[in-house]
Amino acid sequence: MPSYTAPIRDIQFVLHEMLRVSEQETPGYADLDADFTAAILEEAGKLSSAVLAPLNLSGDREGCQLDNGVVRTPKGFKAAFDQIREGGWTAIDVAEEFGGQGLPYLMHTAANEPMVSANMALNMYQGLTHGAYTAINIHGTNEQKARWLPKLGSCEWTGTMNLTEPHCGTDLGLMRTKAVPQEDGTYRISGQKIFISAGEHDMAENIVHLVLAKIPGGPEGIKGVSLFVVPKFLVNEDGSLGARNGVACGALEEKMGIHGNATCVMNYDEAEGYLLGEAHKGMRAMFTMMNEARLGVGLQGWAQSEAAYQNALAYAKDRLQGRAVTGAKNPDGPADPLIVHPDIRRSLMDQKSFNEAARAFTYWGAMLIDRSHKTGDAQAEAMISLLTPIIKGFLTDKGFEMCVQAQQVFGGHGYIEEWGMSQFVRDARIAMIYEGANGVQALDLVGRKLAAQGGKPMMTLIEEIKVFCRENADDADFARDFVEPLKSASKDMQQAAMFFMQSGMKEPDAALSGSTDFMHLMGHVCLGWTWARMARAAQAGLAAGTGDRAFYETKLATGRYYMARQLPATKMHLARIESGAAPVMALDADAF
Amino acid sequence: MPSYTAPIRDIQFVLHEMLRVSEQETPGYADLDADFTAAILEEAGKLSSAVLAPLNLSGDREGCQLDNGVVRTPKGFKAAFDQIREGGWTAIDVAEEFGGQGLPYLMHTAANEPMVSANMALNMYQGLTHGAYTAINIHGTNEQKARWLPKLGSCEWTGTMNLTEPHCGTDLGLMRTKAVPQEDGTYRISGQKIFISAGEHDMAENIVHLVLAKIPGGPEGIKGVSLFVVPKFLVNEDGSLGARNGVACGALEEKMGIHGNATCVMNYDEAEGYLLGEAHKGMRAMFTMMNEARLGVGLQGWAQSEAAYQNALAYAKDRLQGRAVTGAKNPDGPADPLIVHPDIRRSLMDQKSFNEAARAFTYWGAMLIDRSHKTGDAQAEAMISLLTPIIKGFLTDKGFEMCVQAQQVFGGHGYIEEWGMSQFVRDARIAMIYEGANGVQALDLVGRKLAAQGGKPMMTLIEEIKVFCRENADDADFARDFVEPLKSASKDMQQAAMFFMQSGMKEPDAALSGSTDFMHLMGHVCLGWTWARMARAAQAGLAAGTGDRAFYETKLATGRYYMARQLPATKMHLARIESGAAPVMALDADAF
Repeated sequence: MPSYTAPIRDIQFVLHEMLRVSEQETPGYADLDADFTAAILEEAGKLSSAVLAPLNLSGDREGCQLDNGVVRTPKGFKAAFDQIREGGWTAIDVAEEFGGQGLPYLMHTAANEPMVSANMALNMYQGLTHGAYTAINIHGTNEQKARWLPKLGSCEWTGTMNLTEPHCGTDLGLMRTKAVPQEDGTYRISGQKIFISAGEHDMAENIVHLVLAKIPGGPEGIKGVSLFVVPKFLVNEDGSLGARNGVACGALEEKMGIHGNATCVMNYDEAEGYLLGEAHKGMRAMFTMMNEARLGVGLQGWAQSEAAYQNALAYAKDRLQGRAVTGAKNPDGPADPLIVHPDIRRSLMDQKSFNEAARAFTYWGAMLIDRSHKTGDAQAEAMISLLTPIIKGFLTDKGFEMCVQAQQVFGGHGYIEEWGMSQFVRDARIAMIYEGANGVQALDLVGRKLAAQGGKPMMTLIEEIKVFCRENADDADFARDFVEPLKSASKDMQQAAMFFMQSGMKEPDAALSGSTDFMHLMGHVCLGWTWARMARAAQAGLAAGTGDRAFYETKLATGRYYMARQLPATKMHLARIESGAAPVMALDADAF
Repeated sequence: MPSYTAPIRDIQFVLHEMLRVSEQETPGYADLDADFTAAILEEAGKLSSAVLAPLNLSGDREGCQLDNGVVRTPKGFKAAFDQIREGGWTAIDVAEEFGGQGLPYLMHTAANEPMVSANMALNMYQGLTHGAYTAINIHGTNEQKARWLPKLGSCEWTGTMNLTEPHCGTDLGLMRTKAVPQEDGTYRISGQKIFISAGEHDMAENIVHLVLAKIPGGPEGIKGVSLFVVPKFLVNEDGSLGARNGVACGALEEKMGIHGNATCVMNYDEAEGYLLGEAHKGMRAMFTMMNEARLGVGLQGWAQSEAAYQNALAYAKDRLQGRAVTGAKNPDGPADPLIVHPDIRRSLMDQKSFNEAARAFTYWGAMLIDRSHKTGDAQAEAMISLLTPIIKGFLTDKGFEMCVQAQQVFGGHGYIEEWGMSQFVRDARIAMIYEGANGVQALDLVGRKLAAQGGKPMMTLIEEIKVFCRENADDADFARDFVEPLKSASKDMQQAAMFFMQSGMKEPDAALSGSTDFMHLMGHVCLGWTWARMARAAQAGLAAGTGDRAFYETKLATGRYYMARQLPATKMHLARIESGAAPVMALDADAF
């Protein structure tokens, strides 16, 4: 059975040595000193290793069962979820007025990482609830907040997001679910939603569905979509539960992975619902929480890769097979451990160098979200909007790829379910699909974010990288290992952006033909920059001479690996992008 | 449920327009005229679409069951296997003296493709039998051949390969299974083998296990391994079945995919076995059939990708979602089909351009095997040995990646098992692992094949590409679209090979750190060259003016896509390779 240990030292390094969180001016950050965050992370790590991880494999095997409208989650899930709730883990960044701890979103993200790594399917029950909490917190009336937020914050009730219908996912303008206004100000919701994670289960006494639907007579298409709160049980004035509402789980989907999470077909039959925010402005309401939701999915991608990597590493150290090409490393044993072989190391370094940069980049994103939300910093908001498709799309593409590599280290055993490596691959796969499939992320990046505000956020990013390169060119070794590769990759990114600007006007297909390649190109630049920043922090740690030398040396070596072996991908993506639309669009649909 | 149609026109194009099989001097090839191969392919296609494909999803869902030592295969498998047998599909290249049709291995490969695409798990039962047939045909005595080959050729009995043990897969020198010689010349085999595909099942009256084991007192390690024939039921002198032998299935593995194939733990308890070939020369015996076995696995990789692509294409034409960025293409419908979107096309073109080149390259490999086996052509043998790690390693890596892309086209539906896209991904995954994990293929390529005969086969390949480029430089368009990219990529390949030669002597880790990258670099060059050859054939077809213009134009456009969008990968792989061993080997094992 796979095991998991929270990489607390690595997380602390990002928080305090790279991001220097307690020095930030964002409200709440001054309290995040190293002792405080360490205490939180250690507790989250313990819960994850001791309680959540041991249920991952069994949850996958057992899955969820639907019986007469009631969904049974896998054995042990409810008790573990109780521990998550009771430990206050669901409410780290919930406002104090609603019973939470009121800490920054960054801290929620950092404490959440180990729980996602340990058991993604189980953690989704709180993850979606967090999304519903945020939506109501931003768009709800005071009365709505008072009614729903305390119970959602504590996960006493859980939440869902209902967007997809059988015939529409990405294109929500085709939506058919209806919301008919009633005289008392409520609505009657009718229609079918699919792919509803945690739509029905046995771990909470109520479920609060956020549902997109159309009010008859409203505008056509996407502009006529509104957002509603639709509880499983109606809630009385005194907060107690009332009658069962007209919503039920019609079926469970049989999926490739995340078996422990109930993916439901939800049928709404004149269910009572309450408008959240303005009528016909449902999509705008969804957008306001999109950066957070997508950051959470991006984290799933690399958090699975982190867990998979830990197990691949342990196996590579343990499994004896073959001899090192440079001479036996374990001469008294029957063979050397796998880790002596260069190609196994190449694979482990791919995983390690990706995971660590992905973490730091995501945490930086969470910091930008805090800055935007807590200080109204428009530049932070613009930057995180630009980076969100990278966090979601690139990090989940690569996270999945790294899970596959980790599985490969196990040889034939990787294909056998009892080792758990297949599950990491199968679970990580969904992160590339939901919350906007990665092709849609790439489209969002190239079609919308790149040109936002006349390209200002993109130019800011390029400028920040330039400034970094200029300010860190003194140290010759650092310049050679980090600054030069970063400069070169960043130049590729600029050249690609320029290509889009020039061709995009007259031939929009040319930009969109290169969208996925650009998302990856830019992703590598972002992680390369992140590594350069981490390497600087590691050098500072070494210079201070107080910390663990080996830790910092390892950081630097891992960073050098990323720069030498991953950043060259930018040239390939640039060449593909510059080949333009012609190769992609040459064939008529009938010619395929 | 996914569907499948054999791409007969594409296969015929490769056989007759690119490879010009009936003009080859290899014995048996003159008979392979277009009408003859079309008749075979059409029948194989019908069987695949109508009988095998409909059992793919149900076979995955149902899996195999072990009950009191007896393995039950999924519903319908036995009847379908009977049809495969009765149609003579297992015996296409079986010698006529053993009841087969005596056709070239290439024809077996081409007829096999649709069956692998349609139902990989089911097809493995005949695939492994074919391997056992080949091993006995090459290494058996006349008496052994007469006893085993007719029944294996017809698949009345099926075969297995027993190599792996719990503690050793790649490193077979660690093997513990023993073969104790008896006075009557037989051996008693005892030990445990794992991951034995088709080790036990209910579809044949006998199972012939080929088992690697050590004769006590023989040489240490890999040099002391011998190969044995161990039947499930002993066979009497008259050919009738005798007593049950001391071999039994102890457990079935629960796997990520190929659920319809029984992957068994096999326990040998003083089972009667017969030495095949010379004592202690078991590994050499395995090697003689390795090119074929690995070609078969390479085919699985892209044959799954072909099936996945067909379904992704159908979905992309059918599913209405969003509008084309250049204006509505389906203005009377509620939305445009997915295929109008450039990123969906990019994905479909990735898949299509890979599948078609992978097929042609594999068929060329099969032709080299025929040439080597039937004419003793040492150059053909050297070339296929060089290319085998590419066919097995590169084509399965990319085939899996393309299955993932095909799944992605389905959005959320791709994650739901009933659509079948998850199964293509899960089934294709094993091809990267078994028959030598792909890291081992890369090691074989760089550590052995590249330097074989002083590098002569590699130099021959480079020279052949050079000659091709020289002879096809006249047509300016062709030179720009095909020759120039191929030249550039081939130069990258030479530069990488040079790097290995120069650094490999003094620092073997440097070569092996780049082994997987080299396998991919060389894979792209091989497929690029294959596309250039196909493009020439398509131009000839156009010039002849007799065929289907649209078909040839599509071939050319698909080839241009591969050259423009896939070949640039060689630069990335070269940069990684040239970064050498330092980034990869920097960390002590303890520092990870």
